[in-house]
Amino acid sequence: MSVSERNPCCETAPDPVLASFRKSIDNIDAALIHMLAERFRITQAVGEYKARTALPPADPAREQQQIARLRQLAEEADLDPEFSEKFLRFVIDEVIRHHERARER
Amino acid sequence: MSVSERNPCCETAPDPVLASFRKSIDNIDAALIHMLAERFRITQAVGEYKARTALPPADPAREQQQIARLRQLAEEADLDPEFSEKFLRFVIDEVIRHHERARER
Repeated sequence: MSVSERNPCCETAPDPVLASFRKSIDNIDAALIHMLAERFRITQAVGEYKARTALPPADPAREQQQIARLRQLAEEADLDPEFSEKFLRFVIDEVIRHHERARER
Repeated sequence: MSVSERNPCCETAPDPVLASFRKSIDNIDAALIHMLAERFRITQAVGEYKARTALPPADPAREQQQIARLRQLAEEADLDPEFSEKFLRFVIDEVIRHHERARER
């Protein structure tokens, strides 16, 4: 059975070099998804803890620390620091949406 | 030397429970940044390989496969599948920007 018969709609990388790159990307993406799942588990616990102990939900000084730290880590890893900041903002925005949904329940 | 003397501007979590949560978040964020750095290293190599072998830069069928797979992984990890799709889109948009910048050089 040929590759295209096994999965006629989706086998788009018969090129072995490209297929190998894609395998690495898929492994990294799985790791990213599981890391993000764990991160949201923790931020959910943080949200519950802050509500219970009457701590303020947002902490701008903490966010500035996180941004500065991630930009430095990004530079060391040859990742665009601007992207690392956009990424953290993207994740924090989702955390805020989670907290808002939790408050609505 | 007290904590606030060491870092007067930024020590915002004297609460030990919150500080412990934040340590975990910081560890995960460092892992995410390094995973992303490695992912962009690979997509850069993919871009160069595709240019060299005259493969088309975009592959919509591959993207659909990635989205479907990450949504399923997200569900298994109790992460919002919508978020996993937004996340992949966010990363792919950055990959496209990288490729555009590479072409301009």
